[in-house]
Parts: sequence; C-alpha cells; structure tokens
Amino acid sequence: MKILECVPNFSEGRDKAKVEGIIEQIRMVDKVKLLDYSLDEDHNRSVVTFIGEPDKVSEAALRACLKAFELIDMRRHSGAHPRLGAVDVVPFVPIRGLELEEAVEVAHKFGKELGKTAAVPIYFYEEAAIRPERRSLPAIRKGEYEGLKEKMKAPQWVPDAGPRRFNPKTGATIVGARHPLIAFNVNINTRDVEIVKKIARTVRFIDGGFHYVRAIGVSLGEKGICQISMNLLNYHKTPIHRVFEAIRSETSRYGLEIVGSEIVGLIPVEALAEAASFYLRTHEFTPDQVIENRLL
Amino acid sequence: MKILECVPNFSEGRDKAKVEGIIEQIRMVDKVKLLDYSLDEDHNRSVVTFIGEPDKVSEAALRACLKAFELIDMRRHSGAHPRLGAVDVVPFVPIRGLELEEAVEVAHKFGKELGKTAAVPIYFYEEAAIRPERRSLPAIRKGEYEGLKEKMKAPQWVPDAGPRRFNPKTGATIVGARHPLIAFNVNINTRDVEIVKKIARTVRFIDGGFHYVRAIGVSLGEKGICQISMNLLNYHKTPIHRVFEAIRSETSRYGLEIVGSEIVGLIPVEALAEAASFYLRTHEFTPDQVIENRLL
Repeated sequence: MKILECVPNFSEGRDKAKVEGIIEQIRMVDKVKLLDYSLDEDHNRSVVTFIGEPDKVSEAALRACLKAFELIDMRRHSGAHPRLGAVDVVPFVPIRGLELEEAVEVAHKFGKELGKTAAVPIYFYEEAAIRPERRSLPAIRKGEYEGLKEKMKAPQWVPDAGPRRFNPKTGATIVGARHPLIAFNVNINTRDVEIVKKIARTVRFIDGGFHYVRAIGVSLGEKGICQISMNLLNYHKTPIHRVFEAIRSETSRYGLEIVGSEIVGLIPVEALAEAASFYLRTHEFTPDQVIENRLL
Repeated sequence: MKILECVPNFSEGRDKAKVEGIIEQIRMVDKVKLLDYSLDEDHNRSVVTFIGEPDKVSEAALRACLKAFELIDMRRHSGAHPRLGAVDVVPFVPIRGLELEEAVEVAHKFGKELGKTAAVPIYFYEEAAIRPERRSLPAIRKGEYEGLKEKMKAPQWVPDAGPRRFNPKTGATIVGARHPLIAFNVNINTRDVEIVKKIARTVRFIDGGFHYVRAIGVSLGEKGICQISMNLLNYHKTPIHRVFEAIRSETSRYGLEIVGSEIVGLIPVEALAEAASFYLRTHEFTPDQVIENRLL
C-alpha cells in the first residue's frame, strides 16, 4: 500500500469552528487518517496532517481546501505568519511505497484541479516547482497577500495553474512536494551554549555540514544542558545515525557527552529501520520485515 | 488497534490442495492478513502465520481448524515431526497493543470453543498452561498421537478443555500463548567455529547467558566466516541490542569483529524502535511515533 502525507496550512487560527469545519471534510473521506492539527492564534493559521493512499489523500485535500475557501476571506485576514492565501500552502510528502516524483505528480494534478474548481491562482514550489525561481517558498510568498494583486501583473509571476487573475477572497495557493522531515534533537552535558553552537555548525548544511541538515545550538537553561535542535530534510540521503555519530565525534573533542536525544513527532518506519540496521550491522534488513507493515 | 498473531501447525505437509483448503478459511475472514505458510513433506506438516485483531484472528483460527479436522485423518498420518493431532499446536502471539495475558485469554476461549465444537481434547501449554507440568510442549507431546489413547487414561493427562475421550480421527490439540520470537544471526570474521561456539555460550540461557536467548555457533563454510544463530524469545526483557553488544564485547576479546548480522523473517516495530532508541539515546521514543503505525 502506498502512503502519502499531506500537511496543508490554512489562514485561520482563531475561529475553532471554522477549522473544525475544514477538518470535517478530511474526516469524511474513507481510509484517510487525520494524524494531527494545531491552531496558532498569533499566526492566525492552522496546520493539519493526514495520511492515506494518494488518491484518497488528494480527494481529502481538495474537499478541505474548497471548504476553507468558503469559510475564510483573505480581505479580513491578519496574522504574524507570512501567507499568500486562505489555503496558504499544500505540501505532499511520500511516506511509503512511492517516490518523491509520484508525490510531485499528485501535487500537479491536485493544483490544477484546485485552481480550476475554486478559481484560485496556484504556484508550484520545492520539488514540484516548474520554474527554478519558484522552488523557494519565501520567494513565492514575498509581498504576501497584500502585494499579490500587483505581483501577479509581472510576467514572471503568472500562476502555474488556475486563473491568471487575482482572486481577492482566496488569494493564491502554493502547492508542492517534499521529503518527510524528521525533527531530531541531541542533548549535550554542558551549560556552555557556545560550544554546542560550534558543534551544530559542524553538521549543518550552510556551514559545510551534511546536505539535508538544518541545526541550531540552544541552551536548555534550567536543565543545565544544551541541545542541538535539527531538522533532517531527507533521511535517505542524510540518515539519522550519520548525523548522530558526527555529533558524537565532535562532542568528544571537548570532553563532552551526548546525554540523550529526542525524535519530535512522527518518523517513517524506514528511518527507524535504517538507524537500527546501521548499529546492528544488518546489511539486508528491509522495512517489509516489520510485522505491522504487513497490515498496510 | 490491537494486533494478535496466530501460527497454527497442521499435520498435513504433502497434499497441497488440503492445505489450501485450510488456508482458504483464513482468507475468508475479513481484516485478517495471511503473512506466510509453508509445507514440509518430511514432517508431513504445515505452518501458517496470520495476524489481525484478536477476535478476527480467533475466528479465522477456528474456521481453519474445523476445516483441518474435516480434511485430515490422524489414523492415516505419518511424518518425522512429533505431533498429537490433526491440528497439532495453535500458539497465539501478542504483536501490538495487547499484553501476553490477553493472548492467554484468547487462547483459553478459543481452546474451549474448539474442544466443544470439534469434540477434540485440548491441552493448554506455555503461558496458557493451567497446570505447571503442561508448560512444556515436548512434555505434552510425549508418546505422540500413537500413545495418546493410553496417555489420556491417566488422571494427570485429563484434557484442559473438550471431551475427556480420545478422538481417533482428530487426536488432541495443544493451544497456547507466547511472546513473539525474533530470529537473529550475527556473523563473525573467523573460520574457527570453536571460538564462535564459545561466544554463543556466553549469551545463551542454558550456559548462564541471557534469560530469553537460545544460541548456537555454526560455520558458514564457503563464506569463510562463522555465525551465532539465535532465537530471542522475549525482546522486551532481553532486547536485541543488549545481546548484540554482549557478543561484540566477547568477540573483541579474541581480536575478532562482527561483520554483519541478520534478522530472519519478521519483527515487531517495537523491537526495532528499542534498538534504535538504545543507540540514538532517545529515552522517550515510542512506537506510536512511527507514522505507519497510525494507519493501524
């Protein structure tokens, strides 16, 4: 069974009834599983996570977005988080049995349908980007909803799908595909956050570290320890254990130790299997050998 | 969702059509997943593995057993493997969301129903044993089908469920519950099997090793290496990583190295999570954080 994840962000984080109305549309689709949702009042934004087979997930996403366009009017929206539309961003994430390319196809098909059905301009981003300058989410969002009408007049910001005309009620929606992200934190037995920041720099992409690692060093204050807080953006190419071992090696240089770590939220079984395989030296192990996976 | 596994052994390993007839009954039960089955001609025996929610698994097991009693006549059975009946042994194994105690309850309920419906004497074994001397499968099987009629006359071998009278067509059925078993092999870079046998003894129960480990040392001949071949009988109490690390430590004593290992067949996601957690020092990680598990 193929499993796709979808994590749409809606520009409503204060009116719980409206967010519930949107989520209700996801719940109504058979065999789609709602994993999580959260509302942020300051951002006036909500994030919803659900998984299932690709066509079901796409169907649920479409229903939820149409409801959001019905309930949210961007002309009356304010909030701290940058946004372009009532449905701001819809990323599709391949979890199991499908490659990123297939998630990109789902994103394109979904985006075209949404654009047409709701008369909302669509921009494809990250792996689903059709133009290279649209890979970056911040670049697409620049100027936000308030600047969108003007921005759309420029030839380089003609939408990838949907109408070419500004829709004042909906704004625009950014649709894409990306790898699953793992939030991974490593705790180190020192109060000296400067050392931990140094170690964080050794593993993160922008400072010469691993390709798919974002990392910062922070103090955990009262606990008397510090933490390297990370996002692993592609656990196939930069697996957890490799980052962990690099941190261990750099940590020992200062006579320090990793005292614990933390996987925040959810991870795919493949990422777990990869870590166990490395340490147990099981060169042939596959996630298909996990009993629970046989039920999917 | 609770997941229970059932691994019944049927005394038919030559007539494929009969075995298919038995398996067909399992396939007919909705939401039960057949994982594996194999026929052994010499043993004249087949082993079937399926999983699902406890009541569904119990239902599928009952249907399969009733079909087996219809198709197999113990008066005409011969084979190398010790056996007591047409359905020789039915173990229930808790995989997820339930404890061994609940698997024992399922076993007892199932055994009583099977005994009554099929007029077959039932013995409960291992964790489901009602009398301590019946914990051991070999003790119950002693004398085999051929000696069963006489054996049942002794007061200590009155069945735990079903009729007290010998059933010549079915023989008796042994029903029980046990922990999931992990088949785990570790390869060591030496041709000297005697050293590897020594290392195997350090981890196995009978020689003073871990409680839930059975292990032997064997040569892999042509590959020029040796292997410690193990069954881990309770991965909660004797987890994979602990056995692996003990072997690593004993191996280094001889200047040798673990060059690989192998998980044969299936393992529960919990066992994998426990190994990854140990090495990555994630003290709070739970299998619920595995995305795929959310779909069950």
